Amino acid sequence: MERVKCGSIRKEHIEQEVTLKGWVQKRRDLGGLIFIDLRDRSGLVQVVFNPETSTEALQTAEMVRSEFVLEVVGQVVARDAQTVNENLETGAIEVVAKEVTILNKAKTPPFMIEEQSEVSEDLRLKYRYLDLRRKEMQDTFKLRHQTTQVIRNFLNEEEYLEMETPMLTKSTPEGARDYLVPSRVHEGEFYALPQSPQLFKQLLMMSGFEKYYQIARCFRDEDLRADRQPEFTQVDIETSFLSKEEIMAMTERMMKKVMKEVKGIDVETPFPRMAYEEAMERFGSDKPDTRFGLELVNISEDVQDSGFKVFSGAVASGGQVSALNVEGKADEFSRKDIDKLTEEVKVYGAKGLAWLKVKDGEFNGPIAKFFGEEETSSLKDKLEAKDGDLLLFVADKTSVVHDSLGALRLKLGRQLGLIDESKFNFLWVTDWPLLEYDEEEGRYFAAHHPFTMPVEADLEKLQTNPEDVHAEAYDIVLNGYELGGGSLRIHQKDLQNQMFEVLGFSKEEAEEQFGFLLEALEYGAPPHGGIALGFDRFIMILAGRTNLRDTILFPKTASAADPMTDAPGAVDQKQLDELHLQLKAKKQD
Amino acid sequence: MERVKCGSIRKEHIEQEVTLKGWVQKRRDLGGLIFIDLRDRSGLVQVVFNPETSTEALQTAEMVRSEFVLEVVGQVVARDAQTVNENLETGAIEVVAKEVTILNKAKTPPFMIEEQSEVSEDLRLKYRYLDLRRKEMQDTFKLRHQTTQVIRNFLNEEEYLEMETPMLTKSTPEGARDYLVPSRVHEGEFYALPQSPQLFKQLLMMSGFEKYYQIARCFRDEDLRADRQPEFTQVDIETSFLSKEEIMAMTERMMKKVMKEVKGIDVETPFPRMAYEEAMERFGSDKPDTRFGLELVNISEDVQDSGFKVFSGAVASGGQVSALNVEGKADEFSRKDIDKLTEEVKVYGAKGLAWLKVKDGEFNGPIAKFFGEEETSSLKDKLEAKDGDLLLFVADKTSVVHDSLGALRLKLGRQLGLIDESKFNFLWVTDWPLLEYDEEEGRYFAAHHPFTMPVEADLEKLQTNPEDVHAEAYDIVLNGYELGGGSLRIHQKDLQNQMFEVLGFSKEEAEEQFGFLLEALEYGAPPHGGIALGFDRFIMILAGRTNLRDTILFPKTASAADPMTDAPGAVDQKQLDELHLQLKAKKQD
Repeated sequence: MERVKCGSIRKEHIEQEVTLKGWVQKRRDLGGLIFIDLRDRSGLVQVVFNPETSTEALQTAEMVRSEFVLEVVGQVVARDAQTVNENLETGAIEVVAKEVTILNKAKTPPFMIEEQSEVSEDLRLKYRYLDLRRKEMQDTFKLRHQTTQVIRNFLNEEEYLEMETPMLTKSTPEGARDYLVPSRVHEGEFYALPQSPQLFKQLLMMSGFEKYYQIARCFRDEDLRADRQPEFTQVDIETSFLSKEEIMAMTERMMKKVMKEVKGIDVETPFPRMAYEEAMERFGSDKPDTRFGLELVNISEDVQDSGFKVFSGAVASGGQVSALNVEGKADEFSRKDIDKLTEEVKVYGAKGLAWLKVKDGEFNGPIAKFFGEEETSSLKDKLEAKDGDLLLFVADKTSVVHDSLGALRLKLGRQLGLIDESKFNFLWVTDWPLLEYDEEEGRYFAAHHPFTMPVEADLEKLQTNPEDVHAEAYDIVLNGYELGGGSLRIHQKDLQNQMFEVLGFSKEEAEEQFGFLLEALEYGAPPHGGIALGFDRFIMILAGRTNLRDTILFPKTASAADPMTDAPGAVDQKQLDELHLQLKAKKQD
Repeated sequence: MERVKCGSIRKEHIEQEVTLKGWVQKRRDLGGLIFIDLRDRSGLVQVVFNPETSTEALQTAEMVRSEFVLEVVGQVVARDAQTVNENLETGAIEVVAKEVTILNKAKTPPFMIEEQSEVSEDLRLKYRYLDLRRKEMQDTFKLRHQTTQVIRNFLNEEEYLEMETPMLTKSTPEGARDYLVPSRVHEGEFYALPQSPQLFKQLLMMSGFEKYYQIARCFRDEDLRADRQPEFTQVDIETSFLSKEEIMAMTERMMKKVMKEVKGIDVETPFPRMAYEEAMERFGSDKPDTRFGLELVNISEDVQDSGFKVFSGAVASGGQVSALNVEGKADEFSRKDIDKLTEEVKVYGAKGLAWLKVKDGEFNGPIAKFFGEEETSSLKDKLEAKDGDLLLFVADKTSVVHDSLGALRLKLGRQLGLIDESKFNFLWVTDWPLLEYDEEEGRYFAAHHPFTMPVEADLEKLQTNPEDVHAEAYDIVLNGYELGGGSLRIHQKDLQNQMFEVLGFSKEEAEEQFGFLLEALEYGAPPHGGIALGFDRFIMILAGRTNLRDTILFPKTASAADPMTDAPGAVDQKQLDELHLQLKAKKQD
């Protein structure tokens, strides 16, 4: 008899005989009867073992414990009115067991398979196969599956071709650190796992495929944070002949479809756009969370001649002063509370956090004495400050002001419950700088990657004022997370060479590392561009999770290890020999 | 104005103005006019540059050469009746150019972008982005895209969840050679790239997901043949609670759908089945090409007492004699031709190839004299031999007879045109042995993998006669290629432990390598099984190609290198230092 899904049984099945297969969620013994909640992928159903129906089944049920795997044949019956469970989709019925077979036994699990698990993440990762049985994990990976299909269907409909690029590729030191794979055949040589399919997708445009996509595994050997993994998945897209506007509009159609089909939410398109500079000034972030206000306000003009030298001095030395108005919260923050906030901003290099409280139309606080009537009035205007507001200031060089107040804004937003968690705020950040100057290395780095097209009007500054050149780049932001980024790419050999030059590559280095790209650009490379979306993070946001590891089936810990399989591990000497490698003597030797 | 696809323009577009973007396939100058075949992903269209329409466009067109990238604005017009090209989908019309922009130039390519390219594969791989512009390559990857989607849609409809398993996993020496990835964080330790997601998909069943699939990249560091690549793609499927029959039926539904939607062919299901033993006896192969006959016939019984000692001796020493009847071809094979065939079978260890020709009802040939009337008659019956037939014999130990005649059968099948290339013959090969004894290593190896479920009735022989135990395994064969294989898996810890024991693992070794699996089997592992299909090879067959490299966008050469990017390559000392590695001194040192 065909198996019926536990979670699918309803009143209309009453009197039917069904075969169920699944796991024991819970067993209860009650007055000679045994009740078992049987669980499969679809949900739970209550099975009753009754001596009058089958003593044999009852005897078997007595041996059963949590997580045993059972096959049950039984009859669907209505529950008594007083035992109907409204919280369970199958709560109106139960299955009276006629036969039961134990398909497999289970030891007592190290933690209960429950919706809210209070277990340490290490234990959850070691017994990942048990953790994944929990409903919230099952739901997350069903949502991940569904989102994958919605994206694919969308791209298929828009005539993108799904294409597979290589995993064993060439190491290119520009960018993050590569994972390397030693070659057995080519002594002393290595493949690299791809940080992204960037060059291959560009080569596919040069191959005439015009519209490419791939849900691609990528690898970066970087130190890990809560929202980073050694291997991650990105929705990778590239097109020929489309303008920046067309690529952005395609991305919006895709997001709109995902939000509708996965979350049932209508999002408005086009998405708002904000220039990089504006995002930094107003939100202190290149990925603003626009679900709440508490914006940064630049008050440099207002305090440039201030008697408070910390403010006027910062402006005079080329920096700036910006403020947050924490409206109506003056009374909620004691000096001690503000000291804690000060510690927060110091993490980002700020030397301190100045503050004022507004009471009876006047500024209160240790620095209030520095502000005359005119200054007070202009600040109150600019900050829309009213009685009961707490004003927080950082005066420093611009990058420190942005980073510290941007982080403080997010912290206060969460702490004060300003964020509407039901919102999905998409935002484009545009007008990016092409290059960033690295003081330590004393050279420019590509803000996105070295293949990003500069804005045509800025081209003449590429040699003279590289920092003023903007990129044809666009990042898509969702609820304060960078969801992805894209750009038009350089399709002209001369310009690509110029770019390598600005990045400090010698002709030989450029040729050695990217010779194949430079050569390909000579044989009819079409104008092209694309975008890549961080898929794990997108799922995290859609599933309402906060830990990236909850969106990856078998993730790695912060030390890039897997507590379940115990990877990475030692290998045989024979394996090393075949790869022409030896381990370095450890430091103590 | 929106771009129109070159290959999409038809008579109904006549008089419309269109914008085209694409590559110059060919330019011809003719009586003051210039004709350009413009190519994009969709196909070709002829563009005419005419001094009366636009001298400026004509002047630009004069500079244009093959593979230049152009944007053309022009008007669709009907071709003169005598210039209509029936071979071209757009052959009834042409586009008269009003404006043309050169989007990018192209040097003369190292080979022409033509349907039939006579260029060496090395050059094609070095300039892969040019090779991929050829129509037959474009068509192959469109077919690959389409097949991917058909398979996904099928599996989605059958409620399989697409799930991503890790690429950075643990090395398990059992099986093929792993590609290793040194860990930076864990000194002296390594990840391995997966040979298949086998253990992870089994763990997903233990995680309660019930139906899993993934179009998964897999890696094997083996010496390469024409049909092997270091990285390859497989359609990977696993299910809980399904029987072998149900998994095979699901696979048949999937194949039926692919054949219908991709090739427009109705294949009959269920597919024929053949036991492994029968496949070896009749076809000398565990993946028989059933598109033609020329089957092996075992004549051991008939010749066991033969005066021809090569035959009777082979049978006496436990081997066998089998024959092929090459019907009606006696006159086409000279002694010299047969000598060539003899060289073929020697590759497989056969000591020689005996032969007979049938003429006027009698055997002819050097060994004819050994066969008396009775023997001749029984052989003629068994082999259905008639005048004009050529009979070929190998007498040896069984494996040599199978391998050599199996290979000879395929060679003759191709050479004599016996194979109907329009056929798609699916076949299940079943009743596999669980284990193979390796003489050299002096131990048993898993014929499929160590997680394959033995047939229950054979379990008692697992300790005593391991070679007689059959597996719950099934291979799917298409036109003589192994398309994939699957099995039920062991879901009981005790049995898995027994299996490791038979394979010669100590308790400690089993624990060290597969402890996490053994532990997972204790917590309610459901009965499960699945299948994996070699996707690159499937595409090769569907696309009618014979070289696996033509189905992979950026394949590796036989030495596992990429001539385009020049991977693998040397890396910086700094990269090695971070990985705690050093290169072994080369041998000459």
